Amino acid sequence: MKLAIDAMGGDYAPKAIVEAVNESARTNPTVTFTLFGDQTQIEAFLTPNPNIEIVHTMDKIASDAEPVKAVRRQKNASMVLAAQSVKDGESDAFISAGNSGALLASGLLIVGRLKGIDRPTLMPIIPAFSKDHQHFILADAGANADCKPKNLLQFAILGHCYAKQYLKIANPRIGLINNGAEASKGNELSKEAFALLKEEKELNFIGNVEARYLLNGVCDVAVTDGFTGNAILKTTEGTALTLFKELKQAVLTSGTRGKLGGLLLKPALKQLASSLDYQKGGGALLLGLKAPVIKTHGSAQSETVIATLEQAISIIDSHIVSSVEEALTVANSSI
Amino acid sequence: MKLAIDAMGGDYAPKAIVEAVNESARTNPTVTFTLFGDQTQIEAFLTPNPNIEIVHTMDKIASDAEPVKAVRRQKNASMVLAAQSVKDGESDAFISAGNSGALLASGLLIVGRLKGIDRPTLMPIIPAFSKDHQHFILADAGANADCKPKNLLQFAILGHCYAKQYLKIANPRIGLINNGAEASKGNELSKEAFALLKEEKELNFIGNVEARYLLNGVCDVAVTDGFTGNAILKTTEGTALTLFKELKQAVLTSGTRGKLGGLLLKPALKQLASSLDYQKGGGALLLGLKAPVIKTHGSAQSETVIATLEQAISIIDSHIVSSVEEALTVANSSI
Repeated sequence: MKLAIDAMGGDYAPKAIVEAVNESARTNPTVTFTLFGDQTQIEAFLTPNPNIEIVHTMDKIASDAEPVKAVRRQKNASMVLAAQSVKDGESDAFISAGNSGALLASGLLIVGRLKGIDRPTLMPIIPAFSKDHQHFILADAGANADCKPKNLLQFAILGHCYAKQYLKIANPRIGLINNGAEASKGNELSKEAFALLKEEKELNFIGNVEARYLLNGVCDVAVTDGFTGNAILKTTEGTALTLFKELKQAVLTSGTRGKLGGLLLKPALKQLASSLDYQKGGGALLLGLKAPVIKTHGSAQSETVIATLEQAISIIDSHIVSSVEEALTVANSSI
Repeated sequence: MKLAIDAMGGDYAPKAIVEAVNESARTNPTVTFTLFGDQTQIEAFLTPNPNIEIVHTMDKIASDAEPVKAVRRQKNASMVLAAQSVKDGESDAFISAGNSGALLASGLLIVGRLKGIDRPTLMPIIPAFSKDHQHFILADAGANADCKPKNLLQFAILGHCYAKQYLKIANPRIGLINNGAEASKGNELSKEAFALLKEEKELNFIGNVEARYLLNGVCDVAVTDGFTGNAILKTTEGTALTLFKELKQAVLTSGTRGKLGGLLLKPALKQLASSLDYQKGGGALLLGLKAPVIKTHGSAQSETVIATLEQAISIIDSHIVSSVEEALTVANSSI
């Protein structure tokens, strides 16, 4: 198995990336890791290992670059070379913490779409808090701002395969995010997507779900357009961060009693904060391309990058791309 | 001043509604309150007061009724009669905790739109946590699932007037919710709305804002389509509820140490939970109609209904509807 890794993307590159690869190479001796980026900078953090290769390049895509333009013009950027290595069959998946738009463009323009998929979908795995459900997949979290009903159906199929193969959920419950649970609710897009999803007998479509209940584990795959999905992901993050900040503030300003309470509760709070941190589980999978492409958070430290590399290995091991190809052949003609 | 109140809408009607009216009538002796609903049921909770009137009707709109159909057919439903009383100039505003869709339909079909407004917008006031900003207005929170760019511009103007007249913010900062801060970001709707908002010199348009920063008080009025706005509102509620539940669970399962910590922290946590409860501040204003229409939460207890009645009185006092009419005359021709 070979992984192509953009060593230069993200806020803590190349340090966080290279340190993560050092660790993953140590624990996964059958995997080859290829780091794309500035050799001198990479070597400054590298623990020599015969399974780690470097492809040297001085060019990289800036975090604020215009994605499609950058991918088309910067043929030697670290991200573009990593994508090209997947395209050429030299690597099985590519991973980056860099510019999300450029990652998507590299996937579309270089790796290429699967037959039957118009748009790949970006899927983070978000923690859920119920006895029976520990997480759910959000599809789409922002790769596609404007969607057609057909795209949402494809996201559902992609999410179904991801949940089944990677999360090992036998019959993933697919929910359509909507502003009410009744079938008649929603905007034009969700109403038409509802009709398509209902017809797709291969999917365990449970109907509309409200964003309010996502963290309760109401479904295993939450389907929506990328604009709404992005807003939901960011609102969840923002609300959780604000609450923890305010909780800290409340402890600090509530006198000796509160401070003592905070001190005693610290281990429990730390564990809760950690269970909420969806980045701990790895990155977001961009699925629908000829190979898995994985986006890890721009602010990922090496711990998150390690989780992302483990996730990539497991994704390749579970043959998700071929399971998508299979699902598309049995899906009905509406796709 | 006269308020028309649907006594039969919401989970705790008519008890919570009538008890709230008892209290508001006591503290606002210059306001007349008209309760629409079943006289016998209302009188069971009523504290007699010369400023409280009852308009008896046995009909009410069910919480799961199809809104437009219900409003058209149930001419004697409590909500419909309350709306009619505003339309007839007998009341200055109407308030309901009932079926949201029916409230919107009553507003559109009975109260009627303001000239220059294609779609009214539903605006809750949500707490923010920064030194300088204690809340923001979300427009639209779900009245309009499908929007055109022009609608978003109108929501911005309506939100501007609400923030200025009611929240007393001199020059409200209008933000467009988007999946990135750059002007080029977003779906087709937000890109076109951005262009319209930029041209509207009467508005203090600060550009795109990400949902992640809303609770930080990044803007005073957050503009988006009702589908996305509804998802953001529900995600905020769901995340906050889940976090508090998990926090409680963490305390309960963390042994004597954690339990003692939780006990000591209880007052601080209660205060934080209370500051997060946006319903404490009242209801969501449906603005863009010939009179203010206010939706209070379906599960509102009398405390929330009292806050909503105070809010209604203050909204009428601050002449928001005429300020909207004025703003529309100076707004540029793009509306």
